[in-house]
Amino acid sequence: MLKAAVIGAGYMGSAITFPLAENNIEVNLVGTWLDDHLIESSIKGMHPKLKKPLDSRVKLFYFPGLEDALKDAGIIFIGIASEGFVNVFKKVVDNLKAGNSYCFFKLTKGLVEYKGRILRATEAAYDIYNEKFSQKDFLWASVGGPVRAMDLAYKTPSASIYGISDAKIKTVLKNFLTDYYRIIPTEDLKGVEVCSTFKNIYAIAAGICDGLYRKEKEGLYHNIVAMLFNQAVTEISKIVELAGSNKNTAFTLAGMGDLHVTSVAGRNRRYGEEVGKGNDADLVFRQMQSEGEYGEGYMAIKLAIPWLESLNKDRDFLKQQLPLLNALNNIISEKADSSSEINKLVKNF
Amino acid sequence: MLKAAVIGAGYMGSAITFPLAENNIEVNLVGTWLDDHLIESSIKGMHPKLKKPLDSRVKLFYFPGLEDALKDAGIIFIGIASEGFVNVFKKVVDNLKAGNSYCFFKLTKGLVEYKGRILRATEAAYDIYNEKFSQKDFLWASVGGPVRAMDLAYKTPSASIYGISDAKIKTVLKNFLTDYYRIIPTEDLKGVEVCSTFKNIYAIAAGICDGLYRKEKEGLYHNIVAMLFNQAVTEISKIVELAGSNKNTAFTLAGMGDLHVTSVAGRNRRYGEEVGKGNDADLVFRQMQSEGEYGEGYMAIKLAIPWLESLNKDRDFLKQQLPLLNALNNIISEKADSSSEINKLVKNF
Repeated sequence: MLKAAVIGAGYMGSAITFPLAENNIEVNLVGTWLDDHLIESSIKGMHPKLKKPLDSRVKLFYFPGLEDALKDAGIIFIGIASEGFVNVFKKVVDNLKAGNSYCFFKLTKGLVEYKGRILRATEAAYDIYNEKFSQKDFLWASVGGPVRAMDLAYKTPSASIYGISDAKIKTVLKNFLTDYYRIIPTEDLKGVEVCSTFKNIYAIAAGICDGLYRKEKEGLYHNIVAMLFNQAVTEISKIVELAGSNKNTAFTLAGMGDLHVTSVAGRNRRYGEEVGKGNDADLVFRQMQSEGEYGEGYMAIKLAIPWLESLNKDRDFLKQQLPLLNALNNIISEKADSSSEINKLVKNF
Repeated sequence: MLKAAVIGAGYMGSAITFPLAENNIEVNLVGTWLDDHLIESSIKGMHPKLKKPLDSRVKLFYFPGLEDALKDAGIIFIGIASEGFVNVFKKVVDNLKAGNSYCFFKLTKGLVEYKGRILRATEAAYDIYNEKFSQKDFLWASVGGPVRAMDLAYKTPSASIYGISDAKIKTVLKNFLTDYYRIIPTEDLKGVEVCSTFKNIYAIAAGICDGLYRKEKEGLYHNIVAMLFNQAVTEISKIVELAGSNKNTAFTLAGMGDLHVTSVAGRNRRYGEEVGKGNDADLVFRQMQSEGEYGEGYMAIKLAIPWLESLNKDRDFLKQQLPLLNALNNIISEKADSSSEINKLVKNF
C-alpha cells in the first residue's frame, strides 16, 4: 500500500487528501504549528476551512507528530504557505531516511527567501535536500492549477498540471487520479512554478476591476477584465521566457487555466477588490491575514519585483515589457491610485 | 470630415457608433429590415437593446435609406448577424461607386453559406466586391474582441483586435480611438476571423457548466470552467493553424481574450446554461431567437463542423484533436446528454 504524508492542513493540503484517500493511499495529514485548530476540528469531524469532514481514512497529526507521519511515506505533499516553506521543508528533510526513496509534490506557490536570495521554492528545496542527501535522486513535482481547493474537496471535476523533474514521476501520478481529479504532467517544472507564482499576482487585477467598477457599472466591465486577463497571460509568458523556460507553458493549464480560476474566485481577487475600492494595500492584507484568509499575491509581488530585476538588469524592462505588473506594483507597493494606474494602462494599450 | 456608415442597428453596430461619433466622424447608422423597431425607438431617444440613447450626432436610417446613408461614406462597418451577412453585403456593394475608396470593418462573427460553400465571411465579401470592382483595392478588417457591446456603449474600457488586410488601414484606425476604446491591429485577419467564430461556440461550454452544476454546486465548479476554457483556447489554436493561419493568434485578444468575455457574459453562455439544465438544444435556440436575443454559437457550430471537415478529411480529427468541440457538437447537434459528454471529456483528459 502506498503511503503519503501531506504537510499543511490548510485549504490545499486538506483538499488533496480526497483523491489520495479514494485511491487507497494511506494518508497522514500533518498540520503545522499554525494549523492546530484545523487538526483539532478535523479530528472532531469537520474541517473548518473546507466546511466538511475529511475522508475518514485520513490520519491526522499535529506538528510534533511529523516524524511519525513521515515514517514509511514515499509520497510527500507540501501544502503550506510560501512564507513558511523553507522552515517547514527543512524539518521534513530532517525526518527523512537515507535508505528510503521519496517523491515530493509541492502545492506551495510563490517565491521564497533563502540564504539571502530570492528563489523559486524548488531551488531552495533542492539545496536543502542536497545538503543532507547529496548525489541522491531528487524526485520533485511542482503542482499547478487550475485547482481551487474547495472545488476539489467537493469533487467537482478538476485538472491539475504537474511540472515534474523526472519522467519516473509519471507512474506515481497514476495513483492519484480519480474521475474528478485529472493530472497533466509536463517536464517544464520551472515554467509551471513561475506561472503559479505570477497568476496569484495577476489575479489581483481582476479584483481591482471589481473594486473600481462594480458599484457604478455592475455587469458593464467584462471587457476590461478580459483585456487585463489577456495582458496578464501575455506578461506571464514573457516572465517564463525570462526565467529560461518555455513561454508556451503560460498558455496551458499552468498559466491561462490557473489565472482563469484565480481571477474569478479566491482570496487574491478579493484582496484586489478591496484595494480597488480605495483601501490601503497593506492594511487590507493585514486584515485578511488576521482572519487567516489571505492570498499569496501580495507577498509574491514583494519578492517578484526584485527577483525579476535579478534576472533582467534593464531598469525599463518592467515598465515597457510588463506594464500590468508594473501597474500592480505601483498600486500595491507604492500606494498609487488604482483608477489612474488602470486608466494609464488602457490609454497606452 | 470622415464619414462612416454602420450597417445593422443591433447591439454591436449601435455600440460602435459611440467612439466613432466622439471622434467627430459623421456616422450614419442603418437598420436592416429586421431593425425597424430599433431605429424607431432610437429616433425617439432610446436604443432598446443598449437601454440608452445613442449619441445625438448619429444619423439614423431605415433600410430603404441605405443608398443615402452610404453616400460619401468611406468607412463602412457591417454589424449584422452572420445569417444575413451575404444578402446585406450584396446590397451594400450595389450602392457603392467605382470612383470612391472604401474601408470595410466587419463586426459580424461567424461563417457564411455562399455559392454552395461554407466560407469565412471575408471570403464571401471579397468575392462579392470583386465581382463589381475587379482589380480595385479591397481594404478590409475583421473586428475581434474582447468587446461586449453593452460595455462599449457604457464606455467602460475595452480593447479590440482588428485583423487587417492591408497596413494602410492602420492610419484609419487612429480615428476610432478614445480613452475607453483601444485598437490592436494585426495582419492575421484570417486568424482573427476564425477565433471570432469559434469563441462563440466554445463559450457555450461555460454555460453548460452553469446549467449542470450551479444548482447543486454553486461556487464550487470554477475548476471545470477554467479547465474547459483552457481546452477551448488550445483547440481554437489548432483550428486557426488548420485554417492556414498563425496558431498564436488564439493566445491574443482575438481568442483567449474574446473567449474570456464571451464565456462570462452573453447570449452564448446563457444558451449553454439552458442546454446544460437538460433543455432541448434546438428549442432553446428557437425560444431565444423569438425574443431576438440569440447568440451566434448555435448557428456557428452547424457550419463549423462541415467547414472543418472540408479542411481536414480525417474522420477522427474532430474526436481526437478537438474533443471539446466534438462534445459540444454531440450535445447541440446530436442531442447527447450534457452531463455524460462533459464527464467523458474529463475522464479522458
